[in-house]
Amino acid sequence: MGYVLDFADGDKSMRDLLGGKGAGLAEMTKLGLAVPPGFTITTEACRYVMEHGEVPTGLWEEVDKAIGRLEETTGRSFGGGPVPLLVSVRSGAKFSMPGMMDTILNLGINDEVVSLLTEWSGDAHFAHDAHRRFIQMYGEVVREIPDKSFQEVLSDLRASRGVDSDSELTANDLAQAVRRFRQIVAGKEPIPDDPRDQLRGAIEAVFSSWNNERAQEYRRQNKIPDDLGTAANVQMMVFGDLGADSGTGVCFTRDPGTGEKAPYGDYLSLAQGEDVVAGTRNTATLDDLARLHPQCHEELLSVMDGLERHFRDMCDIEFTIEKGRLFMLQTRAGKRNAPAAVRIAVDMVREGLIDERTAVQRVEPASLEQLERYRIDDKDLSKAATKGVAASPGAAQGKAVFDSEAAVTHARAGEDVILIRPETTPDDIHGMAAAQGILTSHGGKTSHAAVVARGMGKPAVTGAAALRVDPSSKRATIKGREVAAGDLVTIDGTTGAVFVEPVTLIPPRPLPELDQLLEWADKHRTLGVRANADTAVDAAAARRAGAEGIGLARTEHMFMGERIAVVQKIILTPEGDDRRRALEELRAGQVSDFEGLLEAMDGLPVIVRLLDPPLHEFLPSRLELEQEMVQRVRVGQTIADLQEMSAQVAGWEETNPMLGLRGVRLGLIVQDLYRMQTQAALEAVTRRLAAGGDPHLEIMIPLVSIPEELRLMRAMIEEEIAAFSRRAGRPLEIPIGTMIELPRAALVAGDLAKVADFFSFGTNDLTQMTFGLSRDDAEASFLPQYLERQILPTSPFQGLDIEGVGRLISFATREGRQANPKLSVGVCGEHGGDPDSIRFCHETGLDYVSCSPPRIKVARLAAAQAELGAERGDA
Amino acid sequence: MGYVLDFADGDKSMRDLLGGKGAGLAEMTKLGLAVPPGFTITTEACRYVMEHGEVPTGLWEEVDKAIGRLEETTGRSFGGGPVPLLVSVRSGAKFSMPGMMDTILNLGINDEVVSLLTEWSGDAHFAHDAHRRFIQMYGEVVREIPDKSFQEVLSDLRASRGVDSDSELTANDLAQAVRRFRQIVAGKEPIPDDPRDQLRGAIEAVFSSWNNERAQEYRRQNKIPDDLGTAANVQMMVFGDLGADSGTGVCFTRDPGTGEKAPYGDYLSLAQGEDVVAGTRNTATLDDLARLHPQCHEELLSVMDGLERHFRDMCDIEFTIEKGRLFMLQTRAGKRNAPAAVRIAVDMVREGLIDERTAVQRVEPASLEQLERYRIDDKDLSKAATKGVAASPGAAQGKAVFDSEAAVTHARAGEDVILIRPETTPDDIHGMAAAQGILTSHGGKTSHAAVVARGMGKPAVTGAAALRVDPSSKRATIKGREVAAGDLVTIDGTTGAVFVEPVTLIPPRPLPELDQLLEWADKHRTLGVRANADTAVDAAAARRAGAEGIGLARTEHMFMGERIAVVQKIILTPEGDDRRRALEELRAGQVSDFEGLLEAMDGLPVIVRLLDPPLHEFLPSRLELEQEMVQRVRVGQTIADLQEMSAQVAGWEETNPMLGLRGVRLGLIVQDLYRMQTQAALEAVTRRLAAGGDPHLEIMIPLVSIPEELRLMRAMIEEEIAAFSRRAGRPLEIPIGTMIELPRAALVAGDLAKVADFFSFGTNDLTQMTFGLSRDDAEASFLPQYLERQILPTSPFQGLDIEGVGRLISFATREGRQANPKLSVGVCGEHGGDPDSIRFCHETGLDYVSCSPPRIKVARLAAAQAELGAERGDA
Repeated sequence: MGYVLDFADGDKSMRDLLGGKGAGLAEMTKLGLAVPPGFTITTEACRYVMEHGEVPTGLWEEVDKAIGRLEETTGRSFGGGPVPLLVSVRSGAKFSMPGMMDTILNLGINDEVVSLLTEWSGDAHFAHDAHRRFIQMYGEVVREIPDKSFQEVLSDLRASRGVDSDSELTANDLAQAVRRFRQIVAGKEPIPDDPRDQLRGAIEAVFSSWNNERAQEYRRQNKIPDDLGTAANVQMMVFGDLGADSGTGVCFTRDPGTGEKAPYGDYLSLAQGEDVVAGTRNTATLDDLARLHPQCHEELLSVMDGLERHFRDMCDIEFTIEKGRLFMLQTRAGKRNAPAAVRIAVDMVREGLIDERTAVQRVEPASLEQLERYRIDDKDLSKAATKGVAASPGAAQGKAVFDSEAAVTHARAGEDVILIRPETTPDDIHGMAAAQGILTSHGGKTSHAAVVARGMGKPAVTGAAALRVDPSSKRATIKGREVAAGDLVTIDGTTGAVFVEPVTLIPPRPLPELDQLLEWADKHRTLGVRANADTAVDAAAARRAGAEGIGLARTEHMFMGERIAVVQKIILTPEGDDRRRALEELRAGQVSDFEGLLEAMDGLPVIVRLLDPPLHEFLPSRLELEQEMVQRVRVGQTIADLQEMSAQVAGWEETNPMLGLRGVRLGLIVQDLYRMQTQAALEAVTRRLAAGGDPHLEIMIPLVSIPEELRLMRAMIEEEIAAFSRRAGRPLEIPIGTMIELPRAALVAGDLAKVADFFSFGTNDLTQMTFGLSRDDAEASFLPQYLERQILPTSPFQGLDIEGVGRLISFATREGRQANPKLSVGVCGEHGGDPDSIRFCHETGLDYVSCSPPRIKVARLAAAQAELGAERGDA
Repeated sequence: MGYVLDFADGDKSMRDLLGGKGAGLAEMTKLGLAVPPGFTITTEACRYVMEHGEVPTGLWEEVDKAIGRLEETTGRSFGGGPVPLLVSVRSGAKFSMPGMMDTILNLGINDEVVSLLTEWSGDAHFAHDAHRRFIQMYGEVVREIPDKSFQEVLSDLRASRGVDSDSELTANDLAQAVRRFRQIVAGKEPIPDDPRDQLRGAIEAVFSSWNNERAQEYRRQNKIPDDLGTAANVQMMVFGDLGADSGTGVCFTRDPGTGEKAPYGDYLSLAQGEDVVAGTRNTATLDDLARLHPQCHEELLSVMDGLERHFRDMCDIEFTIEKGRLFMLQTRAGKRNAPAAVRIAVDMVREGLIDERTAVQRVEPASLEQLERYRIDDKDLSKAATKGVAASPGAAQGKAVFDSEAAVTHARAGEDVILIRPETTPDDIHGMAAAQGILTSHGGKTSHAAVVARGMGKPAVTGAAALRVDPSSKRATIKGREVAAGDLVTIDGTTGAVFVEPVTLIPPRPLPELDQLLEWADKHRTLGVRANADTAVDAAAARRAGAEGIGLARTEHMFMGERIAVVQKIILTPEGDDRRRALEELRAGQVSDFEGLLEAMDGLPVIVRLLDPPLHEFLPSRLELEQEMVQRVRVGQTIADLQEMSAQVAGWEETNPMLGLRGVRLGLIVQDLYRMQTQAALEAVTRRLAAGGDPHLEIMIPLVSIPEELRLMRAMIEEEIAAFSRRAGRPLEIPIGTMIELPRAALVAGDLAKVADFFSFGTNDLTQMTFGLSRDDAEASFLPQYLERQILPTSPFQGLDIEGVGRLISFATREGRQANPKLSVGVCGEHGGDPDSIRFCHETGLDYVSCSPPRIKVARLAAAQAELGAERGDA
């Protein structure tokens, strides 16, 4: 088989070979629709060019023959008369790729053809305009000359003629434009007059555009393989600018903004292809078209209906009307926003067009996260004062506050606030919880602010570089414009925009179809979905969103806020009654925290992780203390108390806290801490039982790397379980497990599994340790450059690093299950809410993923898609 | 087969079953030597007891039968007359274990037997003393009563009788001692009178002593499996205290202190077993024995010669002379110090007793490190003022200095100094290099001071807790005793002792046999041995010690000392001429450093690692700067300069520097740094070539975790190589490789190997990352407790963690070689000098290990033993 296929010889199954556009044209031809004839040069030819640096032998002969067939079919003549054949040349890969060369119209034209066209159409303006368009497009997409150069010529001409639009220019004006365009292009390389040379140049440009920078970047971002190649489609031109009964348009079979089952489209009279989307002239609606060309309108509706039924999906269609005759130029699955995607998928099942499985696979899981957030009214989007990193989606509005105390105070008074900080730290958790949104001048998508905000489901914009924050004076500036405490601020975490002028927030629309879709998803998934939640409020929200338990309840948040003073006393008092009293106070506080979690998740598993961070996170830093000393000495105050505190803190500080005394190490060295937490959790279980509840507590030990660490902790916990069982008069069954978050834990998983009831991969820390990088430090220094320079395709904190970290996960799962077939295995890192990572978890045979509450629905859908994809063999 | 074997029925091949002592007794019996008859209860019985908690059915019947045979052979009667049979009961595992129960003598005695013994020997004092000894030993080792209780009784008795030694006590006195001993023992559990009950109790005690704490601890430290069990040996007593022509002794077939081929021994008249080693009476030499008992002496020499020829090793022999008749009680391989081990091994090959392979396996590799160090005269050992961690072996003496500047100044003046610091940091490198030895009050065996000192081959004592150092006032105290700058201080890094009184240092003795032994080792090893060396001096020393190249030349040391100001300028000047000039200065300095290395290792590979540490290691810390501000503000000085420096430093500081911007990340972000280093190294190659040298430079990239990092760096280096090749007019062949020190590097080794000529496992960092622990922090907090509580058997920084880190190494080696069969693979972490780790490297098929110069000989020997062990199938 050769490299060229006529539309009449292909069909929709040949996307790999013909690209999406070519396959769509072939399919429509097959369906008998009015498609102008043409042919496709296949992706195989493109792949040959990529490999060999030249077109395959015989390709141009094949193209010439195809043109010959086209001349025969159409009765027109390529580069000659009586009726000249003009063609469009369009790229078209398997997946739509905005980065590539798109379209050249009116190819096959030259001065002689212009005369013939004038003769054929009786319209010199039309003929010269076709010429003008061709040279402009060829110059731009093949010769890579900025369109600006051509636009300047046109605007000069308009000015000299005193007219406002190109359509008011005369045929002579257009001929003059063509002459000046040719001079511009000749500066680079003249455009050939021979239509065959034009065509060859265009086809070569299509192929080489596959590897231009924008296309590569787009593929990288969208994970499209580099070796697919693109096809090139050559099609007879039909003209939407051939008089008042001509025009061109784009339509969707359903509303892409809402999903409503109602055709939607734009139409422009006297126009060619690109004019519709250029936005220079106002377009008409389909209703207008019904008035202008009732017959064409009726035919179009019928085609739309037919195509939707045929493709069983909402279609995006391009059409042209030439002298009252409708032609179809393209069809493809229509892009739609998240609510529309959900509604269309569910509606189509109800209409019997698709089945539930297909519906579940039609919606992009990540898009669900936006569904329940506020958004900025489109008309206000241009008012943004600056832009930062889109760190957590959704819009939020409120009074500016500059510290967590103020956030809490205002929130208690019922006011909405936006917390503005240079960056956030664990100290800010309560302020972040109280705020509507978070805005920082530092940090990226994986900064503390971003991670915590996503976990809370709160909008956040981070790393807004133009924002300068001075927390001490409680004010900020954006490009010289002052923001004082109490000023109204709006952020859009979906786009990263920051507003200081008033803008309108649009609330999320309830979407009953989503519940239906997720019900189907649940039916088809095997991977469990749990939540990472530390408070009863979060747990309840997660349960409402469909979480089947808590996969990670971090207890460190129970040490913050009002309890920090008690915690500091415990840390700085090595023994004695004061310490005991403080421990008891902290224990009592935690009992009710745990009770709340267990109550919210009654009947479902709740995995409590014992304290993980190093204790100095609960103390001031020595640097801060010294800075305060400098201040005090300056004003003649004493510093003895600070010096004492500094000496105490020094004993706890570490060079690399992430690799220091934390997790189980802390539990083994400061022996009463984990016991106190265990007692608090068991006390909560006892109380829930007494209240008639059905608590399913599980206890998890963090940062284990040595089986003996787990054995010792397990023994201590079992001792407490036995004691509480005696008190309760019934055996408490509390599974005990471990995080797998250090490479060594994964490597000795077989031994760990012998003393663990469950594994939970802490993929955040596991990623940090496997790469040997500290997220906070890396984000501030080399990670952004690594992504920009494509040293890494994506941040390993966004998408699980399957080659490295993934290998450890697979290995540990296999060895763990071998040693202990009852072992339950899940993921509780941030990746638990990332669709690609969820697919990996599914394929690796994990039991569940655990993610932040706002991502529960995302995870449910992604898990179902992983299962259905595996069934289809997509894996 | 049963659980009991007579000496006459065993031989030396049965160590597993009979233990070392039992096998030795059986073999001597087989050889026809005068061994008092007896039998062994096998290790199998012990293992049965460990498993079932009770002795196997029929054991006591077997023992009774064996006693019956013994009565028959000896014509004596167990617990009866006319001649009573007394026995010794001794434990004896496959490997000698000081932690276990050792010996009970005179078992089978009671009041009635005492009378019979008196009658038989005609010596009431002897008979009562035998009784006294039995109860004392049984009380101590079976009933676990502290010997002090018995000694108090004896010293009371001596005082009341007005005599100095027990031998001056009368038979009546001894009978009284027995009565009082019995009262003491009765407080716990009386000693049975029935000899069979005594024997059962003793055998059970032997078995259970296998699992006492000291024995477990000993096994843990010496890596002896816990499930071997011990045997128990029951042997007819012969009496060395039965008159003036009796005595007992211990001898070695060669001098255990020097290895000289001359019998060496201690003899004590009128004594039983333990008296010789108790040291309460002065022993006689073998020459004295020759005068006392010429015939016995002659017979003993003949036995010694025969045993050595038979066992083909230096033997340690216990003997007793009873009334002029020589009996052999034990033989085993004699313990010897390092020089003796080397000399004996080499001599025995020359004497034709053993072959080279055996000689190579006879010397403990780790012991070689002591051979070339000073040591403290034995007579001075008791003068130690305190003891710290024995961090780097050898003794050193010099004037106390408290900072690196002083160390350098004094050293230049030709004075020996000991550098005393609370702990050391990279800033102290030059001071450490200038000092004879290093003493710190903090840190363990893996602290900075310890690691660097071992690398330099310098004695060091770290973590001397009783030492308080005040660097600012340049003084220290040890338990109240002051040490001022200039005071003479001596440290012993082999034992950890610290001396402030003058002591004598004994210089190392040249040991020509060592060169011979290592020559044999080299013949039999397949694993290469290279050095970690950063200077020409170290490289030359390593080459003299037998290094076959440099496996790791760290370039960061080239950034320290006098160059630090230039380095700071580079860091703090992002661009411009000043930066260029500073870079050029640093480049020029490095050229001569590299030249020195290449010259010292002419003809051998030199692997240069580009800069690894984060740049802020070359800057003051913000904490230090703030502290200085407090000082300055106090005395009214300005701090603007410090504030500015602090602001600049802030941009470089990281939360977890180990996981931050270092290694290849730094090379990619600060792009001129690695290029400058590459140019310097290539310039050095060019100069060496011009000088007629044979430089073999290789360039290594640290901290790679992503293949693209290595690809980019390789491209840059190849660009420079091409440029230098053009200049040199000949192609420079410079292999380019990578450290494997991050878990991910090991996991993606297959991809890395496609762009690497060699891998070098940086096992220090790989261990830190795999465990997720920072060595410095862990040493200061949990690691000591982990070792003490046996959560870890040894520090993973001493011995390679084979289950975890080792798995990554095996995996990466396999996948790397699969992807690139020419890949050279080595280890350059500290483990490269540890014999157990070297064995693992050999088994994993690595090409070489690289270690610090003082460990080169250790590694050569260990590598040969690994090969010979594998040949034998020990692996």
